[in-house]
Amino acid sequence: MPNSLLAVVAPPNRILMGPGPSDISPRVLAAMAAPTVGHLDPYFLRIMDEMQTMLREVFRTENELTLAVSGTGSAGMETCVVNLIEPGDRMLVCQNGVFGGRMADVAGRAGAEVSTIERPFGEVFDPAEVAAAVKEHAPKVVGIVHAETSTGAWQPLEEISQIVHDAGALLLVDCVTSLGGVPVEVDAWGLDAVYSGTQKCLSCPPGLAPVTFSAKAVEVIDNRKSKVASWYLDMTMVRSYWGGERAYHHTAPINMNFGLHEALRIVLEEGLPARHARHMENHLALKAGLLAMGIEYSVPEGQQLPMLNSVFIPAGVDDAAARRQLLEEFGIEIGGGLGPVKGKTWRIGLMGEASSRRNVLLFLAALDKVLADQSVASSGGAGVAAANSSYASA
Amino acid sequence: MPNSLLAVVAPPNRILMGPGPSDISPRVLAAMAAPTVGHLDPYFLRIMDEMQTMLREVFRTENELTLAVSGTGSAGMETCVVNLIEPGDRMLVCQNGVFGGRMADVAGRAGAEVSTIERPFGEVFDPAEVAAAVKEHAPKVVGIVHAETSTGAWQPLEEISQIVHDAGALLLVDCVTSLGGVPVEVDAWGLDAVYSGTQKCLSCPPGLAPVTFSAKAVEVIDNRKSKVASWYLDMTMVRSYWGGERAYHHTAPINMNFGLHEALRIVLEEGLPARHARHMENHLALKAGLLAMGIEYSVPEGQQLPMLNSVFIPAGVDDAAARRQLLEEFGIEIGGGLGPVKGKTWRIGLMGEASSRRNVLLFLAALDKVLADQSVASSGGAGVAAANSSYASA
Repeated sequence: MPNSLLAVVAPPNRILMGPGPSDISPRVLAAMAAPTVGHLDPYFLRIMDEMQTMLREVFRTENELTLAVSGTGSAGMETCVVNLIEPGDRMLVCQNGVFGGRMADVAGRAGAEVSTIERPFGEVFDPAEVAAAVKEHAPKVVGIVHAETSTGAWQPLEEISQIVHDAGALLLVDCVTSLGGVPVEVDAWGLDAVYSGTQKCLSCPPGLAPVTFSAKAVEVIDNRKSKVASWYLDMTMVRSYWGGERAYHHTAPINMNFGLHEALRIVLEEGLPARHARHMENHLALKAGLLAMGIEYSVPEGQQLPMLNSVFIPAGVDDAAARRQLLEEFGIEIGGGLGPVKGKTWRIGLMGEASSRRNVLLFLAALDKVLADQSVASSGGAGVAAANSSYASA
Repeated sequence: MPNSLLAVVAPPNRILMGPGPSDISPRVLAAMAAPTVGHLDPYFLRIMDEMQTMLREVFRTENELTLAVSGTGSAGMETCVVNLIEPGDRMLVCQNGVFGGRMADVAGRAGAEVSTIERPFGEVFDPAEVAAAVKEHAPKVVGIVHAETSTGAWQPLEEISQIVHDAGALLLVDCVTSLGGVPVEVDAWGLDAVYSGTQKCLSCPPGLAPVTFSAKAVEVIDNRKSKVASWYLDMTMVRSYWGGERAYHHTAPINMNFGLHEALRIVLEEGLPARHARHMENHLALKAGLLAMGIEYSVPEGQQLPMLNSVFIPAGVDDAAARRQLLEEFGIEIGGGLGPVKGKTWRIGLMGEASSRRNVLLFLAALDKVLADQSVASSGGAGVAAANSSYASA
């Protein structure tokens, strides 16, 4: 292998407006490059304590078992499922996109008797159908996705949480894309097991999965009859490392944790209400611009996630060529559709650091150029004008 | 939560001479801080290809299924076990330390019928006892640890590999601490599933687990009757992302991969033979120094790992106080004993970047001071002199 031919890592400086990762603050990148210390170094233990404090504030919870799992968001999903589920337990999964489907798959592997209710991509569940399914299946755990990253649909949770708890079940929620972009009220809504990722609205590189478990969920974990299927994700051991005992389990990804620590500081400096308002403001401006260009959302009004704008690709546009041009000519990454909407939708992210006025305006201007080059349409800057007007009226 | 009171991450600059993480090159830290790109960005796909090329060279293998799992070394262990094992499969685990014990635990959770052979901490297995156990248990998979990070023992593998293959079983090997420090010959020795970690002799921060699977292991994976127990670690899906299809599975930890890419470049720039020789040279100098100070190794001569020097704590020394003084006064981290040797041994790492003459000499000088302060002994610099003499005669 001619190793001498391999160049040093020198990535292009992208504008990350896809479904994640999102743009990363230079402050977070600098923290990632801080000198590595040992995973039992007193300094690192302090950082872990601070991260737990900040994660609780971001999750809006007092849950003791709140920490960052040493894997990406999907590892967070698996952590929540395998710690609550024992072989033969019934789990109901609400499936309206790729990530609900993934949750059902994970639950099946953990030995759950899985039942699902389904909605087409882009739709959300109403409380009545969840109530009916809970009544029919009497599950131990109900799993649902707050922000479906594959479709851009925003699932209301409060009523569903009530229904699930009235039936004596636990509510397990995917907040990978919602956390830090729209309100996530773990305690007020009574969510029992929640996982997120770092690379969406927290604007930290991928590699960790914040999770939190309610007291009731912890009780279920404490009363398990069988070992957790995954050693790596076993909260009965991981919590001893994050908790007072500091029992060695696995070596934490030190520098990833440094990065998330700084990302959480940035989130809390801005404040959650201001951060949510910023995500909404930029979403509305982007939407005004897209609509002015004749581009339609694939999610009904009122259920659209502000940080993940899923729109139908205009007729006659070459999906791959358009995204390639955005990337190569403007350095802008957006996402294609997943699953049944592959080739039919684009997913335009405005997550965390990437949710900015300059990104909205640049993207609309760039898209105008791309569509014109494909001889499909030119809005003559109507998109940019509409977005500017949205900001002015905000 | 008074977030404003939380300071920015600013870790002390340690000298990492414990069981890992080890010292990290500033080049690797800089790579960790490179701008994040998307996990399907053409640039990142190229980086993945290059990493596979370099990992194959470091593992000394042509195995196609060679990649970095998105978790720490323990996730690498779980990956190898859960992909090869189906419920009811027989697995034999050779257990002579914490990590062999962990492997048996992981295998049990994956549904294996686990049998173990055991050796006391610090000893290694001889081929005859493995042959007897393989004959008795007829396992599908035999698991063994090449470099027991908990004990410092160095397990020869060639004869055992032959025995395992003669019996038609697969050999699964823990090379977390050995890779990059001593020879690991995956193809020449016929190892079927091998995992490592980044934070030992590769000198990258923790967070990824290099793994490689032989063609025979891949055949076993391809012919599974049941799904892999872990969705996150399922190689039948992960390989589609690392391979030509680039099918989305989970979002790779982009910046961690940047760091490992640079760490691998450094390993191959130095060259494996030179790197192994350096680890041995510094080990011999440290050992000469420690012996001159009257400190004994806990592993028999000839089985001592060069990168992990496990020694008995001298009589009368306060373990915790001594390690605290090394850390606070000299910024040096070493490790305590794990499991049954907790409080009885120290683990002095000379891994990757940390395996250097200056670390050996500083450590011996610092230890002399610590022991003198505890009024236990002072070698009057005999350790440093012996180490210098070892280098001079090398």
